[in-house]
Amino acid sequence: MGKLRYGTSISLDGFVAGINQSVENPLGERGELLHGWLRELAVWRRDAGLEGGVTNASTELYEQSGVSTGAIIMGRKMFGGNGPWGDEPWRGWWGEDPPFHLPVIVLTHQPRDPIVMAGGTSFTFVTTGLQAALDMAREAAQGKDVAIYGGASVAKQYLAAGLLDELSVSLVPVFLGAGERLFDEPLNSAVKIEQTRVVEAPGVTHLRYRVIK
Amino acid sequence: MGKLRYGTSISLDGFVAGINQSVENPLGERGELLHGWLRELAVWRRDAGLEGGVTNASTELYEQSGVSTGAIIMGRKMFGGNGPWGDEPWRGWWGEDPPFHLPVIVLTHQPRDPIVMAGGTSFTFVTTGLQAALDMAREAAQGKDVAIYGGASVAKQYLAAGLLDELSVSLVPVFLGAGERLFDEPLNSAVKIEQTRVVEAPGVTHLRYRVIK
Repeated sequence: MGKLRYGTSISLDGFVAGINQSVENPLGERGELLHGWLRELAVWRRDAGLEGGVTNASTELYEQSGVSTGAIIMGRKMFGGNGPWGDEPWRGWWGEDPPFHLPVIVLTHQPRDPIVMAGGTSFTFVTTGLQAALDMAREAAQGKDVAIYGGASVAKQYLAAGLLDELSVSLVPVFLGAGERLFDEPLNSAVKIEQTRVVEAPGVTHLRYRVIK
Repeated sequence: MGKLRYGTSISLDGFVAGINQSVENPLGERGELLHGWLRELAVWRRDAGLEGGVTNASTELYEQSGVSTGAIIMGRKMFGGNGPWGDEPWRGWWGEDPPFHLPVIVLTHQPRDPIVMAGGTSFTFVTTGLQAALDMAREAAQGKDVAIYGGASVAKQYLAAGLLDELSVSLVPVFLGAGERLFDEPLNSAVKIEQTRVVEAPGVTHLRYRVIK
């Protein structure tokens, strides 16, 4: 069985997004500084349909993550659309061929039938909670890892519930000063972790932790 | 001229001390978890008059820091004693032979003559602010670095004033959940830093940043 993983970029002062997050600017003010290391990677740019870019110590991590992921869990906030789905329901931010190419489980309070997109992406909507969503994602992942995308709040719920297996933090040398913290109080300080891998790369350090069960 | 440095251990969720800090327990509840990597080092134990311990990737950093430091700045909170000094003034927590063996500049609002202790430690009290204390420490350091000890608040004042040259964070894989944050809001997000060294060691990752002037 694969792992349940969450990885995020974080500023040295602990923020995963700047202030004034919005639909147009989900990372908030100056939040794009957190992903500069990613956007300059040639592999990321290739996947985004862009040219150029560099290859460095972050490249292998990006590629490993892609290969080992078999399904994705995301929150309703990341999928988008507010409240009940309505007659012409929202189909996500990403057009008809989303960049995931994997089964995506969306945690929501609004029931809805699954939708199948182009390129191997499907969205399945789960209203019965964290464990149910994880069970469904694990089945879809067929032995590979399940990755939580976006949404620190979803990841923290899985961490608090003792369901997260691995936490990766890409620590970026920047101060955002304010915004959304990855770890706001009160966190479950009973959760025990151990450091399993550290990779220094240009403009970022990738730290991986195993949650001790 | 040497650098003005500050280094601290920090939990993955961003705390330099737990809740309920006190004179008896300056690191607060569970705060001792932040320094487990340090207390197990044979070099640290030797300096503390203890036996045993291990040698690992943290050892060289500990020794480098000691060799390169020529003077220390600390806040009144770390030196101890409250309010005016009185007739039999407080002489610090550390007895007549403190473990610093260096000139120590104490930032305070209460004027006082310098005191010379055994073993090369002296305490000089400065009431005229950050720059004056730094000037005095630099002169005392004779070309070596000036290190800020304890007191995240003192370090953050130097950082905000554009006077800090180097920030080192020893990131410990533990969640304190609550306590004193190294970076509480609002931080001066205008301060720019670059990552200059990363050392992975057992139970800790040491990250060093240069403040860009």
